[in-house]
Amino acid sequence: MKDIERFEKQMAFIREIDKEKMIKRQSYLTDKETHEDDAQHAWHMAIMTLLLKEYSNEEIDVLKTMSMLLIHDLVEVYAGDTYAYDEEGKKTQAEREAKAADKLYGLLPEDQGEYLKSLWLEFEEQKTPEAKFARTMDCFQPLILNDATDGRAWKEHDVKRSWVMKRNQNTHKGSEDIWEYARENLIDKNVKNGNIIDDREET
Amino acid sequence: MKDIERFEKQMAFIREIDKEKMIKRQSYLTDKETHEDDAQHAWHMAIMTLLLKEYSNEEIDVLKTMSMLLIHDLVEVYAGDTYAYDEEGKKTQAEREAKAADKLYGLLPEDQGEYLKSLWLEFEEQKTPEAKFARTMDCFQPLILNDATDGRAWKEHDVKRSWVMKRNQNTHKGSEDIWEYARENLIDKNVKNGNIIDDREET
Repeated sequence: MKDIERFEKQMAFIREIDKEKMIKRQSYLTDKETHEDDAQHAWHMAIMTLLLKEYSNEEIDVLKTMSMLLIHDLVEVYAGDTYAYDEEGKKTQAEREAKAADKLYGLLPEDQGEYLKSLWLEFEEQKTPEAKFARTMDCFQPLILNDATDGRAWKEHDVKRSWVMKRNQNTHKGSEDIWEYARENLIDKNVKNGNIIDDREET
Repeated sequence: MKDIERFEKQMAFIREIDKEKMIKRQSYLTDKETHEDDAQHAWHMAIMTLLLKEYSNEEIDVLKTMSMLLIHDLVEVYAGDTYAYDEEGKKTQAEREAKAADKLYGLLPEDQGEYLKSLWLEFEEQKTPEAKFARTMDCFQPLILNDATDGRAWKEHDVKRSWVMKRNQNTHKGSEDIWEYARENLIDKNVKNGNIIDDREET
């Protein structure tokens, strides 16, 4: 080991991110009783990216997209998870997460800390094909789990159709194909069967 | 969606591998009380690969190595986890896992099923730089968790130094640097403090 100080920084980060496995999400696993955690969610989306990249609207760098998805929730180690439909929590989310990013990525050697932080910012800014596809995965994956668990998390939170549609307003930007499938087979279906509350006004 | 049959196969696989999140390992998370699961383990190693690739003995394709690590335990969805020091279980492991691979990868469109199965076989055969580095991660990551949890899983299983050394006999093949660090800072240290039983004969 030529540069033990560098390696010890990498080790400190690797030990610290273990905490991501303890951050529970609202989604249930397909056993219908265990809450998913952030690490499981990221793992699932990384494999989904490998399998579904052919549906991206634009050509993507798969390694970059997978890396982005693997690390994009790491700030929650310090900032906590903010549920997609928690409007109060979302007001302070950006500030909490920016502070968390500085603290967490500061553990790494500077070059690597800056690279991971830039990947996270790229995801947040939603400008590149990789960021758009990653966001599509990030919205599509919980829809799959919710559908596979008879909408348990949706029902627990009285989730309305308008919330789901707003949350998914950019899902088509990563993949029109996946959004079309998700809308018909995951959202519309669960509005019809009552797992998602239909709050459209009658016309 | 041009080929909905293809997409439905990909979806069936994506739903099925959710079960990997329910397969518990012997390792404890750094909270010292929760058993790690296979998906968390794979997620951790994928990020470790991104950060530690500079220590690989040979140049590696990072996307291929990460993909290999993300999927290498999927056969356990049907074959179950076999603990590193379960000598009885290991006798039937290969046969159980081969059957599981056919069943699981058979869910996917043929091209993707064959690709993921070939990645898994490449990992098992340990001939390429990517497979060797992935194995190094697969042995190094539980050492980190065991060390960070005062050797809880080691102590529960009365793990002996000779077992750990045998388990890690190929760890150096992916990275001499990481093996040197692991031996001194994770294995020797925990033999000295009694977390791993020292079964070397006195000379």
